[in-house]
Amino acid sequence: MAGSLDSLEKCLERHVPAAELSEVKRILYGSQARKLDLPPTAISAAVERDFDLQGYRFEAEPEQLRHPRVVRVGLIQNKIPLPTDALVAEQVAALHKRIEEIVEVAAMCGVNVVCFQEAWTMPFAFCTRERLPWTEFAESAEDGPTTRFCQKLAKKHNMVVVSPVLERDGVHGATLWNTAVVISNSGIVLGKSRKNHIPRIGDFNESTYYMEGNLGHPVFQTPFGRIGVNICYGRHHPLNWLMYSINGAEIIFNPSATIGTLSESMWPIEARNAAIANHCFTCAINRVGTLHFKLGFISHEYYINAFTSGDGGKAHKDLGYFYGSSYVAAPDGSRTPGLSRTQDGLLVVEMDLNLSRQVSDKWNFKMTGRYEMYAKELAKAIQPDFIPNIIKE
Amino acid sequence: MAGSLDSLEKCLERHVPAAELSEVKRILYGSQARKLDLPPTAISAAVERDFDLQGYRFEAEPEQLRHPRVVRVGLIQNKIPLPTDALVAEQVAALHKRIEEIVEVAAMCGVNVVCFQEAWTMPFAFCTRERLPWTEFAESAEDGPTTRFCQKLAKKHNMVVVSPVLERDGVHGATLWNTAVVISNSGIVLGKSRKNHIPRIGDFNESTYYMEGNLGHPVFQTPFGRIGVNICYGRHHPLNWLMYSINGAEIIFNPSATIGTLSESMWPIEARNAAIANHCFTCAINRVGTLHFKLGFISHEYYINAFTSGDGGKAHKDLGYFYGSSYVAAPDGSRTPGLSRTQDGLLVVEMDLNLSRQVSDKWNFKMTGRYEMYAKELAKAIQPDFIPNIIKE
Repeated sequence: MAGSLDSLEKCLERHVPAAELSEVKRILYGSQARKLDLPPTAISAAVERDFDLQGYRFEAEPEQLRHPRVVRVGLIQNKIPLPTDALVAEQVAALHKRIEEIVEVAAMCGVNVVCFQEAWTMPFAFCTRERLPWTEFAESAEDGPTTRFCQKLAKKHNMVVVSPVLERDGVHGATLWNTAVVISNSGIVLGKSRKNHIPRIGDFNESTYYMEGNLGHPVFQTPFGRIGVNICYGRHHPLNWLMYSINGAEIIFNPSATIGTLSESMWPIEARNAAIANHCFTCAINRVGTLHFKLGFISHEYYINAFTSGDGGKAHKDLGYFYGSSYVAAPDGSRTPGLSRTQDGLLVVEMDLNLSRQVSDKWNFKMTGRYEMYAKELAKAIQPDFIPNIIKE
Repeated sequence: MAGSLDSLEKCLERHVPAAELSEVKRILYGSQARKLDLPPTAISAAVERDFDLQGYRFEAEPEQLRHPRVVRVGLIQNKIPLPTDALVAEQVAALHKRIEEIVEVAAMCGVNVVCFQEAWTMPFAFCTRERLPWTEFAESAEDGPTTRFCQKLAKKHNMVVVSPVLERDGVHGATLWNTAVVISNSGIVLGKSRKNHIPRIGDFNESTYYMEGNLGHPVFQTPFGRIGVNICYGRHHPLNWLMYSINGAEIIFNPSATIGTLSESMWPIEARNAAIANHCFTCAINRVGTLHFKLGFISHEYYINAFTSGDGGKAHKDLGYFYGSSYVAAPDGSRTPGLSRTQDGLLVVEMDLNLSRQVSDKWNFKMTGRYEMYAKELAKAIQPDFIPNIIKE
């Protein structure tokens, strides 16, 4: 299961001879992202704080009229530090503490924009379909304690923070939303983006708690490029990525929570396809952890009350293993290796945003996209009296 | 270059120990497609006729009210048998002969629907930007010699034939199109599908010869399921796949011609992403071959007159290597290994089409797709006065 491979890339590096390895990597990953030199202080801090730290960079051609627009993004994946039956306030505090110490290392690495995993301040408890205490993890996007915590981090480290949380919308009937708060490096709340597509699959009973996002596809202009946030299950919907891109996103984050048995073979495909199809950078983040006694690491996505999974199986108490493997894909079809499948991690990626337009000018997907035709075809296809274009003998 | 790896899968099988290999394959390919037992006569014919023959199958759960709908598709990839300066009629005849002998083996394997590579009756000569003799390879889709050839094959073998050719449209100013002709197993021409997106990249100067297809996204109802044809560069456009799927396609073929330096790392991503996103089977086919003296195989995508590639490089006479690697992806995110990167090949894949609706009912991408929102957003986005949704501090 989860633990039998630390990471796909390390496994290949162990076994495939160097001569073939470079060809394998080229076919699997495109022109290889180069390793980024990270400061020794950061490397030793990561060892000490027990998380996987990796750094890569994507370059662009020099241009005459535009300077390179080099930014560093940080993707953070983590287990929940406390069991799910600890007090809510203590669980949140432990998560704040853990993220704070990883963000400090991100700052040592010169990260400009950091993104955490989906619903990062809580266990991914939607498997239970219970309300209390899980709904108590919800907070105001504008001025909840987690947003205030992130504002401090942002200001202290001059870093844009993307903070995906369970939102309590006090203005609209105290409803819940799955929301990413975007905080400027100045410390102000730039705005928020809501999960546009909500799963009803396996243990991901999220439609029990919140509805499809109603904010469209906002893109946030930061000093470090224009960013969008496509939350979790939205990565399965190519149109969701497309609209963030059409609104101008150069980097699209995909904070997620997904498990091995369900989606691991789809994980390397979808965010990378989106980077290719939209000439942008995509940053896929998945949490890690499950109970795993054999390997000696224990995370706590494990619940007091048993629940069933709609698959005919017995009631059980764990959600399966979140496989981490966070990665960044570039517009030229290349990608970084993934972070650990089992360990907390920080992926630092330096990118020259000029690459997006360079690749777009080469491949021309926006120019050749024929959106006018598709707008018409989709408008027809959603009509109740739509007749599919089927040709019969 | 091309020849240093026969296939990615064979390389991994050579080097990765069995215990880890199954995990590597699961992460890379999903639940593994099972090997399909092929008749010994077919296997020996393939050896004798010098092409790679592989067979896999995808199963579905049994249902109470629907019988399994098991069909076999055949994907054929091939080099051009004669040099590009041979007489046009001789080149076409040699290709007909080569395809006929591979289709015979497909028939031995019980293939119900076969698809050939893009513009299969000619060298992929659009790199030259010359007209004669290349435009002489164009034929009527309805009653050209290649269509008549395919009608005979279809009737003889009770097989649906998808035949992508360069089309000469006699009714509309003798214009050229990049077109797939779909021939029913009864031998009649069911219809045609045109390439909807035309590349302007590297040596793929196709927009010099023909325009974007004007037939929309037709789907063909055959006794072996509903099929669509997304030609080559259309695989980069998620909306193209989507509209074939919305029109009801259960299998979407992607006959292609693409080269290693340009697209090889994108190849495993795009058709597979489309299978996932649209809950359907996708069949990606790429031609093989280039001049490659070192390995002793010679194909002839090599031209008399030198041409430049728009990359500042010297004029040259070859198009680079087509890397084959044809594969089938299933709606559950799994896929077959690829055919050879260097050798002609036939991939036979048995699939239970019931898998599509089963996966759709599980993952619900159509149900959660919010096409109404996207129809509106796209309609706005194409307006000249569109204002992107960008939030600034």
